[in-house]
Amino acid sequence: MTTIKDIAREAKVGTTTVSRVINNSPKVSPKTRSRVEEAMKKLNFYPNEYARVLKSKKSNTIAVSVPSIWHPFFSEFVYHIEKELQVKNYRLLISSNNLDAHAELEFLDMIRQNKVDGIIALTYHNIDNYLSANIPFVSIDRYFKEKVAYVTSDNYHGGEIAAEELIKRGCQHLGYVSAIAPQKNDTLKRKDGFIDYAKAHNKNVATYERYEPILDYDHFFDSFFLENPNVDGLLVMNDQTALILLSYLDKKGVSVPEDLQIVGYDGFSYFEGYETTLTSIKQPIKEMAESSLKLLYGLIEGNEIGEPIILPVTFKDGKTTKPLE
Amino acid sequence: MTTIKDIAREAKVGTTTVSRVINNSPKVSPKTRSRVEEAMKKLNFYPNEYARVLKSKKSNTIAVSVPSIWHPFFSEFVYHIEKELQVKNYRLLISSNNLDAHAELEFLDMIRQNKVDGIIALTYHNIDNYLSANIPFVSIDRYFKEKVAYVTSDNYHGGEIAAEELIKRGCQHLGYVSAIAPQKNDTLKRKDGFIDYAKAHNKNVATYERYEPILDYDHFFDSFFLENPNVDGLLVMNDQTALILLSYLDKKGVSVPEDLQIVGYDGFSYFEGYETTLTSIKQPIKEMAESSLKLLYGLIEGNEIGEPIILPVTFKDGKTTKPLE
Repeated sequence: MTTIKDIAREAKVGTTTVSRVINNSPKVSPKTRSRVEEAMKKLNFYPNEYARVLKSKKSNTIAVSVPSIWHPFFSEFVYHIEKELQVKNYRLLISSNNLDAHAELEFLDMIRQNKVDGIIALTYHNIDNYLSANIPFVSIDRYFKEKVAYVTSDNYHGGEIAAEELIKRGCQHLGYVSAIAPQKNDTLKRKDGFIDYAKAHNKNVATYERYEPILDYDHFFDSFFLENPNVDGLLVMNDQTALILLSYLDKKGVSVPEDLQIVGYDGFSYFEGYETTLTSIKQPIKEMAESSLKLLYGLIEGNEIGEPIILPVTFKDGKTTKPLE
Repeated sequence: MTTIKDIAREAKVGTTTVSRVINNSPKVSPKTRSRVEEAMKKLNFYPNEYARVLKSKKSNTIAVSVPSIWHPFFSEFVYHIEKELQVKNYRLLISSNNLDAHAELEFLDMIRQNKVDGIIALTYHNIDNYLSANIPFVSIDRYFKEKVAYVTSDNYHGGEIAAEELIKRGCQHLGYVSAIAPQKNDTLKRKDGFIDYAKAHNKNVATYERYEPILDYDHFFDSFFLENPNVDGLLVMNDQTALILLSYLDKKGVSVPEDLQIVGYDGFSYFEGYETTLTSIKQPIKEMAESSLKLLYGLIEGNEIGEPIILPVTFKDGKTTKPLE
């Protein structure tokens, strides 16, 4: 069996240096580090990572919790997280399926039993438990009562942009449709921005909000249009709901954008390079992933929780609004 | 600090029993186990999982490697894997981004340094390295020279179904379009099934295959249609390519399904409950995930590598083929 001594001999360094490389100590120059790593590769030496963790108290593992990995917004988010982690040789533990609050807490329990260096969570449950776990923690979108590091995009301005673009395209009767999570979070500002902009331009907004989960979308949309038959411009809380609305309108024979213009929110791609046909407010998913990791690395190194990071959104001109004249 | 003794006292059992619970020993009755777990929760006791791993040589971690998590087929696959793992309290390590062979090998290195109990890989590279790692391993779709456990769906029959349905819908000139991976794998049988069925029904098939990655899809499709202007029924290797083809045909003013009928392959949903409009051959993604885990659990317990598991596919009637008369 290969030992640290063999590596030291092969790399022409002392055993302390080898041990420092294994423990990711900053005291080793990049050049020496790479010589030692070469030697380890050559001799097929794989230090027992678990033993290393016990000694160094670092696991080089990040846990990410998302509502569902089977959703383009979250899968893109995780895609970018993982790409960044690869650079740093970090591992990625995933918890999805946490639309179920119980599953999410089970995951947290599991994480507590281990050493993970940090957690990034995109969650819509009450997760004071995450905060009490005393592990560096970054939240996406969510407000908490306690101070927490979080990354979001400019939801208020996103709402303003949606109203501005619909009004520019001739809409007279605006509407806002949303399925909302039980916990308050930053995404609610979309509605505020939308309504404030509309009011400032003398337009009213018919709002329609129901708590998740929506079990019957046909009924959900039926109710809205029964109450608001005149609406000709809609902001829908997210692309997922907007896409389901398009299927509904197709069944009802309503023409989009001729009879009704629709703006979604998220601007996600179904897969890399393949967008939806929706007009939407595009969140910078890649930048949100990178910023949340940067914030997390800072917390791991002992930084204080600073101000939230709020990233800009952009307008994505799709096929569900009319062309500008 | 809480110790095993405190837990034993609280749960009214011996310390050996507590230790057995921590080490997942089968010698503890479910009732006793849950009493001990209750006590651990009550006293906020989280056994150091790493120490446990060192002792038990089990990590309760599964690694999954997919080409890109940002793709509905793979994200659904991972979604179902994770759902199953939760039941067994296993953790899920993810590697995506492995369209890059180098990243995939880095991941393997990382895994080798750790203890993971098993690996499921959906990969199109040469991964003899995975096999030499001596970790229980299940492959999806891929053939290997060496004997390996693998799960796939009935690709040959999928090809047959596609030909049958296109011919039933009046197609005279069939075509098969594919971007292929450098390594041979089970999905190539789609072409065989398609051609065999067509020939048996006196139809020729224009085939067009290029190695991945396709850098310019417009050029890719231009070449095909230049060579084969008469084609009126196409099987496209996967839904992703079929969707890109639809965008191309839309630009060219070709009507689908009036001028050209298209069958994709995969039958994926963009997100849970929201399918594409494609007619497609549907792979049973959930069952593939469950079967591969079952196979992996067997290998972990020391089972021999058995015969590959081949799951049935179904026809998904979408909007890119004509209705049956």
